[in-house]
Order: sequence, then C-alpha cells, then structure tokens
Amino acid sequence: MNYSIIIYIIGWILKLEAAFMALPGITAIIYREEAGYAFLITMALCLLAGIPLTAKKPTNKVFYTKEGFVTVALSWIVLSIVGALPFMFSRTIPHPIDAIFETVSGFTTTGASILAEVESLPHCILFWRSFTHWIGGMGVLVFILCLLPLAGGYHMNLMKAESPGPSVSKLVPKVQSTAKILYAIYFSLTLLEIILLLIGKMPLFDTLCTAFGTAGTGGFGVRNSSIADYSTYLQVVITVFMILFGINFNFYFLLLTKKFMQAFKTEEVRYYLGIIAISIIVIAFNIRHMFGSVGAAIQQASFQVGSIITTTGFATADFNQWPVVSRTILVMLMFVGACAGSTGGGIKVSRFVILCKTVSKELHLYLHPNAVKKVKMDQKSIPHEVVRATNIFMIVYVLIFAVSVLLIGFNNFDLTTNFTAVAATLNNIGPGLELVGPTQNFGMFSFGSKLILIFDMLAGRLEIFPILLLFVRDTWKKF
Amino acid sequence: MNYSIIIYIIGWILKLEAAFMALPGITAIIYREEAGYAFLITMALCLLAGIPLTAKKPTNKVFYTKEGFVTVALSWIVLSIVGALPFMFSRTIPHPIDAIFETVSGFTTTGASILAEVESLPHCILFWRSFTHWIGGMGVLVFILCLLPLAGGYHMNLMKAESPGPSVSKLVPKVQSTAKILYAIYFSLTLLEIILLLIGKMPLFDTLCTAFGTAGTGGFGVRNSSIADYSTYLQVVITVFMILFGINFNFYFLLLTKKFMQAFKTEEVRYYLGIIAISIIVIAFNIRHMFGSVGAAIQQASFQVGSIITTTGFATADFNQWPVVSRTILVMLMFVGACAGSTGGGIKVSRFVILCKTVSKELHLYLHPNAVKKVKMDQKSIPHEVVRATNIFMIVYVLIFAVSVLLIGFNNFDLTTNFTAVAATLNNIGPGLELVGPTQNFGMFSFGSKLILIFDMLAGRLEIFPILLLFVRDTWKKF
Repeated sequence: MNYSIIIYIIGWILKLEAAFMALPGITAIIYREEAGYAFLITMALCLLAGIPLTAKKPTNKVFYTKEGFVTVALSWIVLSIVGALPFMFSRTIPHPIDAIFETVSGFTTTGASILAEVESLPHCILFWRSFTHWIGGMGVLVFILCLLPLAGGYHMNLMKAESPGPSVSKLVPKVQSTAKILYAIYFSLTLLEIILLLIGKMPLFDTLCTAFGTAGTGGFGVRNSSIADYSTYLQVVITVFMILFGINFNFYFLLLTKKFMQAFKTEEVRYYLGIIAISIIVIAFNIRHMFGSVGAAIQQASFQVGSIITTTGFATADFNQWPVVSRTILVMLMFVGACAGSTGGGIKVSRFVILCKTVSKELHLYLHPNAVKKVKMDQKSIPHEVVRATNIFMIVYVLIFAVSVLLIGFNNFDLTTNFTAVAATLNNIGPGLELVGPTQNFGMFSFGSKLILIFDMLAGRLEIFPILLLFVRDTWKKF
Repeated sequence: MNYSIIIYIIGWILKLEAAFMALPGITAIIYREEAGYAFLITMALCLLAGIPLTAKKPTNKVFYTKEGFVTVALSWIVLSIVGALPFMFSRTIPHPIDAIFETVSGFTTTGASILAEVESLPHCILFWRSFTHWIGGMGVLVFILCLLPLAGGYHMNLMKAESPGPSVSKLVPKVQSTAKILYAIYFSLTLLEIILLLIGKMPLFDTLCTAFGTAGTGGFGVRNSSIADYSTYLQVVITVFMILFGINFNFYFLLLTKKFMQAFKTEEVRYYLGIIAISIIVIAFNIRHMFGSVGAAIQQASFQVGSIITTTGFATADFNQWPVVSRTILVMLMFVGACAGSTGGGIKVSRFVILCKTVSKELHLYLHPNAVKKVKMDQKSIPHEVVRATNIFMIVYVLIFAVSVLLIGFNNFDLTTNFTAVAATLNNIGPGLELVGPTQNFGMFSFGSKLILIFDMLAGRLEIFPILLLFVRDTWKKF
C-alpha cells in the first residue's frame, strides 16, 4: 500500500473542503447568523491539517486499483467527519453520530435526515446541507482530478473507484480533460435549473439549495414539506431536472459533440426513459382516484417516479399512503436507480440491462449448446470482466442488504420500515416507507443502527468495493 | 425438439400417477369414504391416456439438455393437473385453479394451502395431499429413472433438470443406479421416522401423512393446528427429521459406503448445520420471554428454524407474533433453503457458499491483480460453468421474485404479505407472514394471483430454467 500518496490526496481533500465551506460562510454573513463561526473554526482546522499533509509531493508513484479504492474510501470518510463539524459546533446537531449521519447522507446524495423539522435551522447550515449534495453528486475526487496535475495511473484508478456504474468510459483520451468536461456539464445544467426556478419566482436561497439537491440527486429540502408547497410549474421543472441528472453524462457529451444519432441510440438511456414512462403510466392509473384530475395524477406520479428512480428523494406527496401497487413499483425503482455515469444512485439501469442480456444469452445456450453468442450493448460486446463484476456486485449488494435489515431489526420496528430504510440508504434515496416514509425521518433509530445505515450510504455511493476493501486485512499490508 | 420421447415419458407419468392413486384409493376403502370414487375415475382417465402414449417406444434417441428441461417441466404440469382432479371430482376443492394450486403446492413440496381448515376433509383426500409431498420431494422423473430402461443421454439430462442444486453429482457411474440408491435412502429415512412417530403414540394415519410431509419437506398437515397439538417428543422427532431431509443425500451415501471422514467434511452440510445452530441460538434468545423456560424457547426455535430452512413449513407456534429480529431471520432462512440434492427447496446452501467464495476471490483479485485463485469446494475447484449458472440463477430468481410481488400487489394486501407470499411459494415453504402467516392461508388471493403463485411454486421446485424455457419461442422449433 502506497501510504504517502493517499495521505497527500487526503490533504488536498481537507484544503478543498475548507474552500467549499467558504460558501456557507458567506451565507452566514449575508443572514448575519452566529452559526457562521462553526464554519470558520472548521475551515481553520481543515487548513491546519491539510497544508502540512500536502507540503511535500509524494515520490512513490505506485498507484493500483487497490490504492484507488482505499484513497476514495478514506477521502469520503474524512470528508464526512470534517463536514459534520459545523453541525456539532453550531449545536444544530449536537451528537457526533447524528451529525455524521446527516453529513454522509448529504455527500452520498442520500438525503435521509435525522431532523424532524428543518425550517428553524440557520440559513448557512441549510446551505451546507444542500451543498454537500452538489459536491458529492459528481464526486470530490473527480473534482480534484480537474485541479491536480497528477501523473501516472492515478487518474483512472481514482475515477474508476468514485464513478458509479459497471464500467467507466473516458469521454476523451485524457482523464483530466474528461473530469473537466463532466464538471462543466454538471455546472451548466445546475445553472440552467437555477435560472428556470428563479423564473418561477422561487426565492433565491430556496432555488440554490433545491438546485444543489436536484443536481446531486440528493433530496435535502429547506422546507419541512419538501417540495409540496411550491407551484406546479416549479414541481415540473424539478421533475424534469431530476430525470435529466439521472441520465448518463456520456449522453450530454455526445450531444455536445453533435453525435445526436449515437446519443439517442444509447441503450441505457432508452431503457431508463422507458422504465420511467411505464412506471408513470401505471402509477397514475393506480392513484387517479386520489387526485382531482388525470393531469394532477400524472404530475404527482411523474414527480415521485423521477424522484425515486434518480434516487433524489424529494417528495410532493406522502406516497406511503398510495395503493400497494404504486408503493411496490416505487420500492422497485429504488433498486433500479439511475443511469451509470450520472449523479444518481441505486444499482443502475445498465447493470440490469447487462444482467437481463446475460440471462437471455444463457437461455439461448440451453437451446443451442454450440452457439457462440456475445452479450452486446450499444453494438459493442461487453467485456467478460464487466459481466463478472456486475454479477459480483449484485451478490455483495444482496448480502449487505440482508445483513443490514437483520441488524437494524434489533430496534424492533416493523419489517417494511427496516426493509425500506436499508433500501433508501444503500441506494442513496432518502425516504422509504412507513416509519421512514416521506413525512418521517431517521431520528428514531439507535446509534448502532445509524452506524449501519451510514455504512450503507457510503457503500451505496462508492458501489461497495472501496468501502469493503477497508475491512480486509490484506489491504493494509505494506506490499 | 424431439416430441416423440417427451410424449412417451409423459405417458409413463400418467401411468405412474394412476399407480400412486391406488394408495388414497385404499385409504378410502378403509375409512369407507365416498370420495374414493374421485380417485377411481382419475385412475381410469390416467390409464386411458397413458397406455396408448406408451404403446410404441420412440425411435428418435436425440435427447439434449433442452429436451430434458422441457420433459421435466411438462411432466410436472401434467402431474399437477391430473393430481388436482380428485379434489374437483370429490367437490372438496371445486374450483379448478384452487385445486391445481393445492396440488402444485403438494408436488412442489410447498405446503401452501387455500383451505381454511382441513379436519373436515375425507381421509383419502388428506392422504393424497400429503402423499403428493412424498412423490414430489425426491422427484417423479427420478422415480421413473429407477423403473424405465432408457438409454443414451436421457438419464443425465432428466436428472439434471429435476434435481435441485447448482450441479448434480452421480453417486455411482450409472444414473439409473444413482436414482435407485436415492430412493432407497429416501424410503428408509421415511420408514425410520414413521417408526419413531408410532413409538410416540401418534395415530397411524397422522403418522403416515406427517412422515410424507417431513420427508418431502412439504408441510401439509392433517390438523388445523399443524403440529402444535402433538407432544414434545413428537415435535422433537419431526424437528430432527426435517433437518435430516434437508441434508444433501450424498452425505448419506458417503455414510453408507463408510466414508465417514469425507461425509463429515462436506462443506455444504457443515454450513447448513452451522446456519441452523446460529439461528436457533439467536431466535431462542430473542423469544425466551414468550415461553416458560429456556428449554421451551430452544425447542420452539429449533422447530421453526428446521421447518423454514428446510422449506417444510410445519408450524408449532405462530411465529408471525415473534419479535422482528426472529421474523427477519426466518424470512432470510426462507431464501437460504436446504442443501442441494436434498428434498428441500429455497436457493440452497451450496449456492450461497459458491457465491460467497466468488466474492472473496474477487476481493482477493483487487488486492493481488496477478494472482491465480480458483474457487474451491470440498477440496475440488468449482467448474466455471457452475459458478456462471449460479450467478444466472440468482439474477433470474430476483427478477421473477420482483415481478411476482408487483403483480400480486394488485390484490391490495400489505407489502409484507405480498413479499412473504412470494418468498413462501418460490422457495417452496408454505407459510409466510401477516395474511399468509402460519395460522392463515392463501385462499384470499384472486385467481390471477394464484396462477402467479402456481408459476412460482413450479419455478422454485424445478429451479426456474425448465419452466422458463417453456416460454421461449425457439424451444418449440422442430430442430
């Protein structure tokens, strides 16, 4: 294990986090809030630790998959612990585990909260909560890749470990340029949403926080009612942008480079939009009696489907009260998740496409034992390692899921609560059903259960293996 | 597709079923029950169809995996439809779908019933219900293999399609001899249980039916209270035999051939017994306040753990009332299931062992990218195809599971009911939780839902692919 480079990158993470906290700091100044000191102190601590760690460039250039995974996992843990300090210093969330839960929920773009109400919080704290979504959405290591002149295998192995999906595609030959393009698209789309929300007369502060929550597919809101009290226009804008941020960013890159045909032929995007369309139709039909008009039912169905499949977790309706078919579909969408290479969580549409194609190939093999058939996606055959990695991912996913449900069961809440609490955290969604439904929160869980859910959120965002590797003894051997 | 051989084997299935029905026929004579006519008519119909179908030996000897799968799937469907006739003819279960549900539940050794109470049924009907468990447990095609002098690839491809588990091991070089040995062990163990139950003063009729239910890991009882009213001695005997019938029959063959060391080193058996032991301890600890003594808690926990992991489904307590941790463990055991090559259902312990080993190998690969590590079980490396087939099985399993839960959701029962109803049928267990809990039944589902659950029971017993292949168009092409 190459410790020097890991420590160096973590140093950069700390410096970057100090820079990020300048924004809530400014918010505190604008609203003249005392809680601003909490950010000032945290920033000072970050720099105090970060500057010495980055003083000397590491000489050892060895950087394999293992180092990439460990760096990413540790970076996210450091990011979350430091990010929790303002909550503790400002006494808005005094207990460390609660504060870390909230911060991990922010960075992993889960949006599950332990707070029963948010409207009494200072603006700077609300801003930080939502801003963590934006930082975590595209990934903090990807951000560092834009800035740092790193050489060698660093780039790809960091990118691989942090980017969601079964395989990472470089948009352009250089990883650093890929990272810059991704952030440019991310920033532009966020800006566009901000403009459209402002046109709909949403207050500026609400607009910024909502846009961060949508872009990162996070789900923290600034109102206790989440999105329900905003106008229909605003809800529709948010619906559209949630769905847009759940699309593979390759799609936008293809559009930018004018490869329209190729863009619209992307299989994952087509399946993703297809699943959304079918779910909206079935749910709208299923809930139409609960709303005044068919239009209202479709709009509510669209918002909730978009919110859940992209793993955002905003709510405009208490879908825990919806009929069981609608709830079942929403729970399934929790697992499907968004596209690979988007800011969304879940298992990812492309993984399901790969799995379904593998199954169809297998059935074909039973019928034609000597046939040679390759699993293809977008006209290219999927490498064997990707298929295998996808299978392995599913297995570990199911095992972690089952163990988590069992362990939080000791809190003695009902099965649906436990099941959907794990689904909502491991898939980075936010709300589940019953006691963790859209109008509820995660505050009632014991600290032990919260630690498990924190693990699930991190495992979900980093797609399990980086986090899991921290628990293998072999990882920590010198070489 | 080689239709002639498939039709020939189905002809034999019909003749065999007529022979099997002689036993409930005799029961009807002993108890002087009118319902006996229902069996007489069905037997006549079976022979009327079966004799012409088997009159001419097929000349076409082509028999691949595909033919094996289709033969087994169709045989089970014919077996179930014909087996349902006595219920309809005797008016005990007048509706065809209900009658088929009950019969499929019997043959697949599920034990899920649509009957609210059973004590008013004629003895011959109860006998037939339980006897279907015994027939389905070891498999009817395996039985035919003992009798029919078939040549060529028939044996292995039939055995492969009907025997549960990721891979089929022949005990001896000849498949026909293997089938005979398996049935000899099956018969002897059943006989041993009958003797031990009779010693505990269980009435002869109850003894036979209970032994059939235990041996096939079925779960149909002859009393409304399932096993709860029998003495502790009888409950303990049943517990032990449920667990014994969940063990891979290879284990008994190794014992018979005096390979004791090898027998007790079988990894699957060790994990199976380990899982049982741990589950009993945790559940007993979790429910001890509900029972008078620690001993009673252990005994109840043992019975329920044995009943669920072997997918038998007998009940001595309403575990739907147990604390959520115990219920979560029981739901998990529903999925784990028994050993491969046993009469039990579920995903099978060996599949989980293979999956866990694959994951550990993958983690190892991240750390040592150039290392060569094979996945081993019982000191032998697992062939690549078995690992792949296991992965594929898991994927299709999850997909079928999800779609089933969604579709039966249209009946608007609660999520736990829907989830555990599918878990209980796809894993061939019987009872689930809430509305399908141990004191409830499946009668309230719509006929559409019952058809889905019938599909799930068959898919679970035949391990999905044989049944799935029936729905692929390519299967039905001439060649």
